[in-house]
Amino acid sequence: MSLKVSIIMGSKSDLNVMSEAAETLKLLNIDYEIMVVSAHRTPNYMYEYANSCVERGISVIIAGAGGAAHLPGMVASLTNVPVIGVPIKSSNLSGMDSLLSIAQMPPGVPVATMAINGSKNAALMAAKILAIHDNSITMALNNYKNNMEQDVLQNSIIDN
Amino acid sequence: MSLKVSIIMGSKSDLNVMSEAAETLKLLNIDYEIMVVSAHRTPNYMYEYANSCVERGISVIIAGAGGAAHLPGMVASLTNVPVIGVPIKSSNLSGMDSLLSIAQMPPGVPVATMAINGSKNAALMAAKILAIHDNSITMALNNYKNNMEQDVLQNSIIDN
Amino acid sequence: MSLKVSIIMGSKSDLNVMSEAAETLKLLNIDYEIMVVSAHRTPNYMYEYANSCVERGISVIIAGAGGAAHLPGMVASLTNVPVIGVPIKSSNLSGMDSLLSIAQMPPGVPVATMAINGSKNAALMAAKILAIHDNSITMALNNYKNNMEQDVLQNSIIDN
Amino acid sequence: MSLKVSIIMGSKSDLNVMSEAAETLKLLNIDYEIMVVSAHRTPNYMYEYANSCVERGISVIIAGAGGAAHLPGMVASLTNVPVIGVPIKSSNLSGMDSLLSIAQMPPGVPVATMAINGSKNAALMAAKILAIHDNSITMALNNYKNNMEQDVLQNSIIDN
Amino acid sequence: MSLKVSIIMGSKSDLNVMSEAAETLKLLNIDYEIMVVSAHRTPNYMYEYANSCVERGISVIIAGAGGAAHLPGMVASLTNVPVIGVPIKSSNLSGMDSLLSIAQMPPGVPVATMAINGSKNAALMAAKILAIHDNSITMALNNYKNNMEQDVLQNSIIDN
Amino acid sequence: MSLKVSIIMGSKSDLNVMSEAAETLKLLNIDYEIMVVSAHRTPNYMYEYANSCVERGISVIIAGAGGAAHLPGMVASLTNVPVIGVPIKSSNLSGMDSLLSIAQMPPGVPVATMAINGSKNAALMAAKILAIHDNSITMALNNYKNNMEQDVLQNSIIDN
Amino acid sequence: MSLKVSIIMGSKSDLNVMSEAAETLKLLNIDYEIMVVSAHRTPNYMYEYANSCVERGISVIIAGAGGAAHLPGMVASLTNVPVIGVPIKSSNLSGMDSLLSIAQMPPGVPVATMAINGSKNAALMAAKILAIHDNSITMALNNYKNNMEQDVLQNSIIDN
Amino acid sequence: MSLKVSIIMGSKSDLNVMSEAAETLKLLNIDYEIMVVSAHRTPNYMYEYANSCVERGISVIIAGAGGAAHLPGMVASLTNVPVIGVPIKSSNLSGMDSLLSIAQMPPGVPVATMAINGSKNAALMAAKILAIHDNSITMALNNYKNNMEQDVLQNSIIDN
Repeated sequence: MSLKVSIIMGSKSDLNVMSEAAETLKLLNIDYEIMVVSAHRTPNYMYEYANSCVERGISVIIAGAGGAAHLPGMVASLTNVPVIGVPIKSSNLSGMDSLLSIAQMPPGVPVATMAINGSKNAALMAAKILAIHDNSITMALNNYKNNMEQDVLQNSIIDN
Repeated sequence: MSLKVSIIMGSKSDLNVMSEAAETLKLLNIDYEIMVVSAHRTPNYMYEYANSCVERGISVIIAGAGGAAHLPGMVASLTNVPVIGVPIKSSNLSGMDSLLSIAQMPPGVPVATMAINGSKNAALMAAKILAIHDNSITMALNNYKNNMEQDVLQNSIIDN
Repeated sequence: MSLKVSIIMGSKSDLNVMSEAAETLKLLNIDYEIMVVSAHRTPNYMYEYANSCVERGISVIIAGAGGAAHLPGMVASLTNVPVIGVPIKSSNLSGMDSLLSIAQMPPGVPVATMAINGSKNAALMAAKILAIHDNSITMALNNYKNNMEQDVLQNSIIDN
Repeated sequence: MSLKVSIIMGSKSDLNVMSEAAETLKLLNIDYEIMVVSAHRTPNYMYEYANSCVERGISVIIAGAGGAAHLPGMVASLTNVPVIGVPIKSSNLSGMDSLLSIAQMPPGVPVATMAINGSKNAALMAAKILAIHDNSITMALNNYKNNMEQDVLQNSIIDN
Repeated sequence: MSLKVSIIMGSKSDLNVMSEAAETLKLLNIDYEIMVVSAHRTPNYMYEYANSCVERGISVIIAGAGGAAHLPGMVASLTNVPVIGVPIKSSNLSGMDSLLSIAQMPPGVPVATMAINGSKNAALMAAKILAIHDNSITMALNNYKNNMEQDVLQNSIIDN
Repeated sequence: MSLKVSIIMGSKSDLNVMSEAAETLKLLNIDYEIMVVSAHRTPNYMYEYANSCVERGISVIIAGAGGAAHLPGMVASLTNVPVIGVPIKSSNLSGMDSLLSIAQMPPGVPVATMAINGSKNAALMAAKILAIHDNSITMALNNYKNNMEQDVLQNSIIDN
Repeated sequence: MSLKVSIIMGSKSDLNVMSEAAETLKLLNIDYEIMVVSAHRTPNYMYEYANSCVERGISVIIAGAGGAAHLPGMVASLTNVPVIGVPIKSSNLSGMDSLLSIAQMPPGVPVATMAINGSKNAALMAAKILAIHDNSITMALNNYKNNMEQDVLQNSIIDN
Repeated sequence: MSLKVSIIMGSKSDLNVMSEAAETLKLLNIDYEIMVVSAHRTPNYMYEYANSCVERGISVIIAGAGGAAHLPGMVASLTNVPVIGVPIKSSNLSGMDSLLSIAQMPPGVPVATMAINGSKNAALMAAKILAIHDNSITMALNNYKNNMEQDVLQNSIIDN
């Protein structure tokens, strides 16, 4: 199993949110790396990171950032690898700033924006993308979906 | 060249926005279909549509919708095909309602949300996803990017 | 007393809000069922649910959902039974996303939207609808209203 | 055919929005009255209006108002007749003030809130409520829904 | 000292905010009453209250309310007595709904809106209004202002 | 008839909004002055203006300002004369910035905030304040109110 | 007179806003350059630009950008030269997205944010910064301020 | 080392936020004063303060304020010294009111607005401004930046 997904985040404090992406990829048996890359504090490292993704075989990037969240958009401007952005809930504006800073990208440079703190969905979106050419991931996704469905169905009726 | 991308929208009035996705795919030489599918007015047709996408060979769905925009999320709940959502600018709330209705999906069902009216980026995101296993699209994307860059560089200095 | 109102919600975690609807219906002596039906995790079950409501004798549906809240609108698109939507307060955007996703329905498919977390009012609205043809519910509503009024009047003057 | 629905609005300037409710009721063959009743400029008239609705045989009230929109909530506090509120798009805040002033009612007094300018849906919600005990309205609604569906289906595929 | 200011609020739960208005009036030696009057739960009592204010000698009304806050605007529509509105911080939307429901009154019926939870300022505004014809209140306001100013000046320089 | 109300505004461009306050005062037969005073461009003049209001016999100040609207609050901090603030609709944020800059005053310095562009209501609020000690204004207000009410009542029923 | 200020913008379409910064600098007799540098379309050029500013003698950078506006923050992360950010009014969200994307920078990398479309103020802030060590600019600013003040004072009283 | 930066705030309760500006200046070896100056409670003192800054040798002012935050803008209108504004997170609207009241200044009077609670960045912006003519501050900033970068780089890879 080769490396497929790279999870990055703007600050170590985002890890409590972004670790859910890692756990979900693990559950789906998809190999990933996870690291801190800051657009603002390590702009040169971000450039090197983005420029090396293709040759390192990364197929999908998941990037979490909060506030004036520039990481997903800047990485997306530097590589053809699709970037999934996770707006981290910010302490003051509840992530509305993060959401707008990631979603409102100008024409030419797309970022696939998830919900605020939606790192689990970022992993599932990465899996859906990889599943286009990987049947084992399709099966893992079907399994995930069935579990989710059964979980609701078996507890649907509420006693009261 | 086989069908790869399906562009759908909740209403024919969304076409002036969504046609930009079609034009961009055409420019990148990616085959697509484009049609109206309404979550609210044709829920049964939406089910059939979503359930047939895999067997029809669709790799990526681009779904535009406005207001209480349920189309991208509902289609995403019905198929493993990755769904890119385009929030259409609404007449009253400028698309903020569309953006939140598409982006704020619950854990389990991801939608790759673009900017409000960001249908060109939806096409580019679809291309980035398809480029993972298709070098000709990678080359088309590189070409697109170079043109975009040259366009800025050659007109960077402003006389005044 | 036959079944009249069906209370559904997108997730078991919505129960702490939605149980207030159940309690209020009980107080008004109106029969109801209460269950989890998820638009995103159990779309097929939602279809079956919505399509069976009329024949099961349901007169009013109360549907609670949060975030990109698609449950009330999708059920409303599938049945003639009037749907009352309850936007659940979301953890990140305080329910503003839920409110817009439920209220901003396109022309053709109405949802009767309540306040954020307004499940008690959903029950009262259901009662007002049923009271059109049921005098016992009218009397229960008058009683409820009188109690509410007396509660204010008897404690109106504040010592200080 | 007796009077069933009363359409009121806070100002004559709301008529261009609210007339769509009237037209939709006419289409569904439901009898209605339509008038201006202002919570702020004619508070006494509003009281008389609200208190006379039951005896005049009104089953559903549709109330449109904009800005600090008090009309739907005040009428709802004065009568058991279910009130459907239509937030009128305001000139300065696009109807967000109207939406919150109507939707965010306190526990005890429900208003069935529609989308901003959603007067067509207000008529359809009134029809759904009346259809509980009127098969001819159920048939009219089914007809309306089929037309809406066929309208999408017959123009679904877009040439381009 | 005769009764001058009437403090009302939509719910007893608003008392923890509104009591600050009472304390400030006491400090300024202005006589007041304080009571619960609900626009939605006691609409008839609100009418009686508003219609009796002039004859009871009330010169200024301070009205606190939250959510779809109709109390200040409805009272203002029923009496010539100037109404100062205090938007109470709501549990879900932080008082933004209360602020808009009180401030965005239509032409013809003014409410003097304070900040969210600004009940102290409501009392000071009442005092400023009464001070136009009462020198003792002017002196009390000057005293209040001087204390406030001295409080800042004597602690202006921060050791650090 | 002596000078009672002073209407000020931050910029001559606010005159198209603020002139409605002047016209309304004229209609109510209340004497006023109207002038431009800018908190940011003429801070010293603003100080002189505010400090001279009491001795010039001004009883109420109406202050309109847009954007980071500091004029009403700064004048209120400099004089005991009650200040009514009118948030002017701004070109970019529709007056939401003006509204918050005027309404959200800290404890100690109240501004009586009107609706966005609510200069007519500012004049009516000034009139209500002056009417406390002036029966002729009370009569003018009653007249105004009756006209407003009759205007609605005589055109209430809509032919359609 | 040597080059002092560099005005950049993310897109040529921002020029109608940003040219006001150029005109204001010209009025104050401050030398500047003006050019298009796109964070997303020309990321490498942006790096070169930012890294060359110090050696080219630039003292202040004015950067305008709209939507997910990353240009000011990214340039600020690459150079010690102070960056003044101008949020350009965006077509869909009126510049609220631009404002938050520029203002909400994380600790460590400041951007001096102006009002939406506030490019004139960006030039004045640049002038204030340069005036710390340049008396001729101080005099130009005093002159500018006096003109602004006289402009208000000479037209303060409004005939009506 | 002479006094360079003046840190002011509208209320002593802002000190827990503003002290971070002081600590950052200390770290960069820049001399500062820190004090409470209230636009609303001590308007005369604010005038004296602003008018004395130039002669006291202050080069940069950092002004923190919350709610209807008038302090930064008013001081900026009174002096040529550049003012950096820090919007303090407010208890009810999370600092959105503070941000708009500081950022949305009218043409003519700029304030360099930081993020909500962004007092550390205010100090860094002051340092960037002073570094234009002070190499020791440039070196301190380079050092600060290197530490920040190393801090990320040395902990970039996350074990999991």
